[in-house]
Amino acid sequence: MADRVRAAIVGAGHTRFGALAESPRALLRSAVQRARESVDRGLSEGTIDSVVLATLGFGGWQIGNASAVLAEEARTVGVPVTRVENACASGGYALRAAADAVESGRSHLALVTGLEKMTDVPNARRRYWLGVSGDTEWERLSGLTFAGVYGLLASRYIADHREAREALAEVAVKNHRHGLANPNAQFRKPLTRDAVLAAPKVADPLGLLDCCPVSDGAAALLIAPTEEARRYTDTPVGIVGTGAGSDYLAVQDRPDPTHFAATRRAADAAFRHASFDRRSISLIEVHDCFTIAELLALEDLGFADPGGAVALTLEGSTARTGRWPVNVDGGLKAKGHPIGATGVSQAYEAFVQLRAQAGERQVPSAERALLHNVGGSGASATVTLLARG
Amino acid sequence: MADRVRAAIVGAGHTRFGALAESPRALLRSAVQRARESVDRGLSEGTIDSVVLATLGFGGWQIGNASAVLAEEARTVGVPVTRVENACASGGYALRAAADAVESGRSHLALVTGLEKMTDVPNARRRYWLGVSGDTEWERLSGLTFAGVYGLLASRYIADHREAREALAEVAVKNHRHGLANPNAQFRKPLTRDAVLAAPKVADPLGLLDCCPVSDGAAALLIAPTEEARRYTDTPVGIVGTGAGSDYLAVQDRPDPTHFAATRRAADAAFRHASFDRRSISLIEVHDCFTIAELLALEDLGFADPGGAVALTLEGSTARTGRWPVNVDGGLKAKGHPIGATGVSQAYEAFVQLRAQAGERQVPSAERALLHNVGGSGASATVTLLARG
Repeated sequence: MADRVRAAIVGAGHTRFGALAESPRALLRSAVQRARESVDRGLSEGTIDSVVLATLGFGGWQIGNASAVLAEEARTVGVPVTRVENACASGGYALRAAADAVESGRSHLALVTGLEKMTDVPNARRRYWLGVSGDTEWERLSGLTFAGVYGLLASRYIADHREAREALAEVAVKNHRHGLANPNAQFRKPLTRDAVLAAPKVADPLGLLDCCPVSDGAAALLIAPTEEARRYTDTPVGIVGTGAGSDYLAVQDRPDPTHFAATRRAADAAFRHASFDRRSISLIEVHDCFTIAELLALEDLGFADPGGAVALTLEGSTARTGRWPVNVDGGLKAKGHPIGATGVSQAYEAFVQLRAQAGERQVPSAERALLHNVGGSGASATVTLLARG
Repeated sequence: MADRVRAAIVGAGHTRFGALAESPRALLRSAVQRARESVDRGLSEGTIDSVVLATLGFGGWQIGNASAVLAEEARTVGVPVTRVENACASGGYALRAAADAVESGRSHLALVTGLEKMTDVPNARRRYWLGVSGDTEWERLSGLTFAGVYGLLASRYIADHREAREALAEVAVKNHRHGLANPNAQFRKPLTRDAVLAAPKVADPLGLLDCCPVSDGAAALLIAPTEEARRYTDTPVGIVGTGAGSDYLAVQDRPDPTHFAATRRAADAAFRHASFDRRSISLIEVHDCFTIAELLALEDLGFADPGGAVALTLEGSTARTGRWPVNVDGGLKAKGHPIGATGVSQAYEAFVQLRAQAGERQVPSAERALLHNVGGSGASATVTLLARG
């Protein structure tokens, strides 16, 4: 069976992630400009015919009508622009919406952009606009933050699996090591397991260094129908499977809190469309908003049995040089997590890796990538499969 | 040339619009339940395989992760749910995203839901979250509200075209008359031109009765591939053209403020896909957030030359019994404008009319409908063409 490749990424751009001085408009402009410039054969004005924007706060809490703002900054005024918001999975859902537009025949070159500008929002306000992406009735109003929810999941996981706390720390250590090689990463400093374990607690057992940071940044992709992709480049990256799933918003409503059914559904749906299975994956980007999330993701995605992510992590299999390189760009943990940008940024990394343009963080012979983006504490998820050529 | 019909509406549901006591969750549940019940051959559980939600405040300013909330209320937990937000055009863009999902082959039965719950938000807060959907730098921060922008457009239009003020009043009178026959309408009382002209000014020359109200409500659609539509009903309504466009956010950046280029682009794109032209349209739903908006829309959509909407309106051509019945459900003006629901509600009305199920407000021999939804003061627009059979 041939891959059901119908849409392909032909360009990608990325700003630095971190606490940045640039305005939201400037970040959008810069990510889109870099995506345009990345197109090997160049891009004439007027070629982009549809746009999708992923953002949580911009377009909602900060300023409205983000689609119109993006149209101006992307130099696509006139073209349809759709804002997609699915909490922290906004980027993954936006990529999927753009693929739909291309695969329906409606769009011949779609721009997907993800943005967040979080550091200039006062703490209390940001806490609220992040908090409402979780369950309100049972979680937020009883004081449970996202760190709190993931802390409970980590407690359960540690109680069930030996050496789990060490594996959590190793996720942070590994992702910071990966981030050292990524010029766009927010944190480019090494960590030790001892430092992670000794960090001030945020939500027991998770400490400060188990948590991803608050970030600003933007990323952008250009997506064309596969049969037209070579107008733009000899090395397009095919979108060979996309899946998405949802779940109950409150963790208490799910039968097993330490497994995200939304992730499982998304992965199953994505692999149903692809001609290969998990064994062929050379590169994995998972949604490690907290260290525990990386372990749960590896299990829900089918790379390990329940508890099996501990050994995978401790034996180094998820490092850049291991069997399953996970988050070679530093992940949310070290690269940063500007919410709307995250899912788009994962695809940027895969685009660069699968074209062998990742420099010192290049995964050798990277041919197929899996991207995993989560919204809320597992209320929604997307899985995207990308392949070279 | 055959119509490029690839997706069709097979069911639709609608709550009452108005100042309602129901919670946002209850409104969502009710609209979706009615859409399910409207399916002639019934709908088994588990048939819906993708969902799109249009909402401005819910999912942003009121509570987050609206997609996950909808999944629970629609009884589609597990299924991908995407939130689309494009200011007041959210519904039109959501319908388009669902059509993309169906036409790409990814979805075989898509649910589109629009929701807003505006009346329980304190005035100042609502003013802010509506206001940021317009331009911030040049309009909002200098005190220009949406009514203010449309008031300026109305002043310009009245200066240019004779009897324009009377035509504005007639838009309100006609849409209120239409609303009398719509059990879901927020206002079901007749108006006179004199009452409209004598109403307290909101933004000169627009008075209170030139403005649509603040509303609560929800609407829902079910969309299937055309070739599968007859599993659900013998009378599907085909989506035979969709178009969307954007424009500069600030009115001052546009060459002619009294014409919305986004609407023109959307209409041109929609008709490019259809096998018929404007003369075949039997039913028009336009975005009459203010009376002036209905006149501008008729001209930008190509039903009248600049200034020609005055005569069309005053001679009764846009009444239910006229040549171009416009807003036979009462429009935003009388039916109400729960923002995210509006574009979905327009499609609900067309679905009912094209199936000849609209009771006392039925347009005779309604075969083809045009829907027009606007975001901001013309920063984005969608046009959707629907046809019977």
